[in-house]
Amino acid sequence: MIQHTSRLCKGYLSKKESDASDDLNSELFTLTYGALVTQLCKDYENDEEVNKQLDKMGYNIGVRLIEDFLARSSIGRCQDFRETADVIAKVAFKMYLGITPSVTNWSPAGDELSLILESNPLVDFVELPDNHSSLVYSNLLCGVLRGALEMVQMAVDVKFAQDTLRGDNVTEIRMKFIKRMEENLPAGDE
Amino acid sequence: MIQHTSRLCKGYLSKKESDASDDLNSELFTLTYGALVTQLCKDYENDEEVNKQLDKMGYNIGVRLIEDFLARSSIGRCQDFRETADVIAKVAFKMYLGITPSVTNWSPAGDELSLILESNPLVDFVELPDNHSSLVYSNLLCGVLRGALEMVQMAVDVKFAQDTLRGDNVTEIRMKFIKRMEENLPAGDE
Repeated sequence: MIQHTSRLCKGYLSKKESDASDDLNSELFTLTYGALVTQLCKDYENDEEVNKQLDKMGYNIGVRLIEDFLARSSIGRCQDFRETADVIAKVAFKMYLGITPSVTNWSPAGDELSLILESNPLVDFVELPDNHSSLVYSNLLCGVLRGALEMVQMAVDVKFAQDTLRGDNVTEIRMKFIKRMEENLPAGDE
Repeated sequence: MIQHTSRLCKGYLSKKESDASDDLNSELFTLTYGALVTQLCKDYENDEEVNKQLDKMGYNIGVRLIEDFLARSSIGRCQDFRETADVIAKVAFKMYLGITPSVTNWSPAGDELSLILESNPLVDFVELPDNHSSLVYSNLLCGVLRGALEMVQMAVDVKFAQDTLRGDNVTEIRMKFIKRMEENLPAGDE
């Protein structure tokens, strides 16, 4: 259903030269994520339901991942949303996806921003079939951000504003700060 | 359903010291894999069906991953099954999972061996609930090996012989060489 195209045919060898490090390679993760999305497309009737499910799964991952992130990064409480956005882009994305999105398009009130992803390992060599034009393939990431930030008492709204997979020039995640939450609210699985 | 236990509670901080590198971190992959297994447990009636599905997904991943592996590793044709096993353990597992299993328990005929995994990133902080005693949680890996080797004309049988997740002392993948395949057999999705 979701095609992983041949990487040799798509200039893999030239890509290889630029990232020839000993780092853990994300290809197995990329393909496993593809298997997850494919399974959800089989399970749910339409793309909107799949998007919702990916967001929900991401949320449950985020509420767990934040603990790992705080332990590994030794980062303390961020002063404001601007600092939070920088940490997400420069530390968290780097740590778990090996990329560093740029933080841009701030709203005048400073409560809304865009993360621009020049590349997105989740969609490497993926092509969406025509009958999935509404699928937000990487929507898990929005849920992860929402879940993780909720655990540090920040309620945010996160969605894909642009996606190269759907023909846009860049991939853009739009994130909006909603409110600071009470410290002692219990956060559970959705 | 499948529990990811608290990593702070399970000595995460001591683990951190030993692998404090800048490498891509596998935690997001681990949790995403958990979401996939959980989804399959919802979709299929029993553990045997889930195991089968994981193996099949792994197979489809393996037939694609091999191309990436050959390109990245620049490894040519292996002389025999013994060399193949070494490359799998020392290059492939290291590249995609960041671990190096030991190759051991060779059969006298040299057609069967064990990969012993001291740690398995897929099961980090996972605990199986009692009603999933037959679930082979990491079975995707068997499918990946089977699919990848089929693409280099080796038919193998792969299964988990032991699994720490099910109370065994080590995790052991048993791999048996079946036959060398014809070069021009088309291999497709299962």
